[in-house]
Amino acid sequence: MKKIINKPEDVVNEMLKGLKCSRPDSIEWIPEKRIVYRKDPYINKVGIISGSGSGHEPDQAFYVGRGMLDAACAGPVFAAPTLDAIAMAARLIDRGRGVLFLVKNYTGDRANFEMATDMLQFDGGPTVSTVIINDDVAVKDSTFTAGRRGVAGAIFVYKIIGAKSEEGATLDQLKKLAEEVNDNVRTMGFAMKPCTTPDKGSPTFDLGEDEIEVGVGLHGEPGRQRTSYKRANIIIKELTDAVLSDLPFVTGDEVALMINGLGGTPISELYIAAGIAHDILQSSNIKVHSTYVNNYCTSLDMEGCSVTLLRLNEEYKRLLSAPVDIPIKYF
Amino acid sequence: MKKIINKPEDVVNEMLKGLKCSRPDSIEWIPEKRIVYRKDPYINKVGIISGSGSGHEPDQAFYVGRGMLDAACAGPVFAAPTLDAIAMAARLIDRGRGVLFLVKNYTGDRANFEMATDMLQFDGGPTVSTVIINDDVAVKDSTFTAGRRGVAGAIFVYKIIGAKSEEGATLDQLKKLAEEVNDNVRTMGFAMKPCTTPDKGSPTFDLGEDEIEVGVGLHGEPGRQRTSYKRANIIIKELTDAVLSDLPFVTGDEVALMINGLGGTPISELYIAAGIAHDILQSSNIKVHSTYVNNYCTSLDMEGCSVTLLRLNEEYKRLLSAPVDIPIKYF
Repeated sequence: MKKIINKPEDVVNEMLKGLKCSRPDSIEWIPEKRIVYRKDPYINKVGIISGSGSGHEPDQAFYVGRGMLDAACAGPVFAAPTLDAIAMAARLIDRGRGVLFLVKNYTGDRANFEMATDMLQFDGGPTVSTVIINDDVAVKDSTFTAGRRGVAGAIFVYKIIGAKSEEGATLDQLKKLAEEVNDNVRTMGFAMKPCTTPDKGSPTFDLGEDEIEVGVGLHGEPGRQRTSYKRANIIIKELTDAVLSDLPFVTGDEVALMINGLGGTPISELYIAAGIAHDILQSSNIKVHSTYVNNYCTSLDMEGCSVTLLRLNEEYKRLLSAPVDIPIKYF
Repeated sequence: MKKIINKPEDVVNEMLKGLKCSRPDSIEWIPEKRIVYRKDPYINKVGIISGSGSGHEPDQAFYVGRGMLDAACAGPVFAAPTLDAIAMAARLIDRGRGVLFLVKNYTGDRANFEMATDMLQFDGGPTVSTVIINDDVAVKDSTFTAGRRGVAGAIFVYKIIGAKSEEGATLDQLKKLAEEVNDNVRTMGFAMKPCTTPDKGSPTFDLGEDEIEVGVGLHGEPGRQRTSYKRANIIIKELTDAVLSDLPFVTGDEVALMINGLGGTPISELYIAAGIAHDILQSSNIKVHSTYVNNYCTSLDMEGCSVTLLRLNEEYKRLLSAPVDIPIKYF
């Protein structure tokens, strides 16, 4: 295993330390709890928190800032954050209007966010609500979940809810909106190369020289089908069709398209995928209002991508284009 | 070879098509010339152009927009853009105040930008100046260059010159400033895994299971040394020290730090590198004013990163933080 790391057990904290060094004015962190939270003063706003195992960067610590998350709780690589970290984060960012947990649907994450909620209730902490995100159409249940997995569609939920929270919406309004966004977003991905966790030091699953995993999970969980490698036009059509037929998206819908890299795939290939997805959507009479192409929710160094579609309305459009000030950026 | 591509010969145009589909309001492109240029109206401004072989994305097409480049000329993967494309781009973006070519130091690119300049002069085209960027401290000459190579430091040059051009600076002023920035920026990188070009379908060089290439070039050219894998603290110190001692940067300097991913390395590892570089610079009494961590100038799917330092003054700080509106972004 060759990675830019020191000891595998220090990977998460060394990454978060690099984040803090790089953005000293905008975030704070609590190393022993692996909490990252906003440093800028904000008031009169429901707090928005997400959290999960690390290894999906920039999800979630790199989305902490104005217009998106108020705190992120990072677990060890591919393992849930602790319930006391979640509870502490909720107390830290609460401004008296409650806290919304946005949680991708994984058994470990759900359990710890639920226990943290119980703990806060018992201790007189802030009022907390939770919305579970489960946008992955690939499989009904998986090795890590009961029900569908939450994947890159979560980023649209954070973005829309973060923007709406800045406008002063209540906890109940935000919970309802987050559920609606989740109901309107669908994703499917594929892997060409598995990821290697620092702990294990070898790929999380085996994939032949000419094989791909269609519908792969964010930790390398099996998807729908192991097939032979297909050129871009074919695989992107397979992913897009699976997403389209699931909601289903229909003629006349207006969507946001996300092509999400899984960590090891260069941006050039993601843009090839974006061009193909645009053609498919155009031929289905679905209008792409805005396109997001980057690494948003990754799986360490996995090669591959996912296709996400969000059915838009005027409010979603407005909130998606609201400004953000987050650590991940170019300039 | 497993990549999100169709035919290798279509890779560049399919990528640029995806870019145009994704950012229809902000850029135009000329497929047969592989030129990407700004669509928004702008006047009274020197035109800024860069160009090189493709495979280094987001460099350069994804930097075309307000505050950075006015056009980019993309060659085939790892091969220079044609001189007629360069000349056409210059004519397209000229607003009567001349055009500045910012060219990374590679023999093929230099030759074609020079010939394009001659062609424009002969044909009564816009006045053109060229600045050659050669920030890579790794080797004196290389298989692709006479003299030092131009690498990620180029991004700081584009950013500062783009911002200054928006302020109405003259061609002469911009040329002088670009030369000064180039004189104050230094980079060195390393590779853990070579890149695979679509045409060749196999790695551009061989690297053993436990080997790294220190000082690697952007096309996989040999660097300073082939050594065994080293943990992050050691390799990042080696890169940073090489950069520091070259200018040299000295106690009291204020710098911008860039950790640039080479394409296949996840953002988490780049932030680990950033944290380490911050510690090294602090212990050298060099103040980091701003930190840039992302994939800026890549080598397809190569794994590894580079460390760039730019010695700052008040003008550079102001211009670096000026707004940009470019295709590559998160939201």
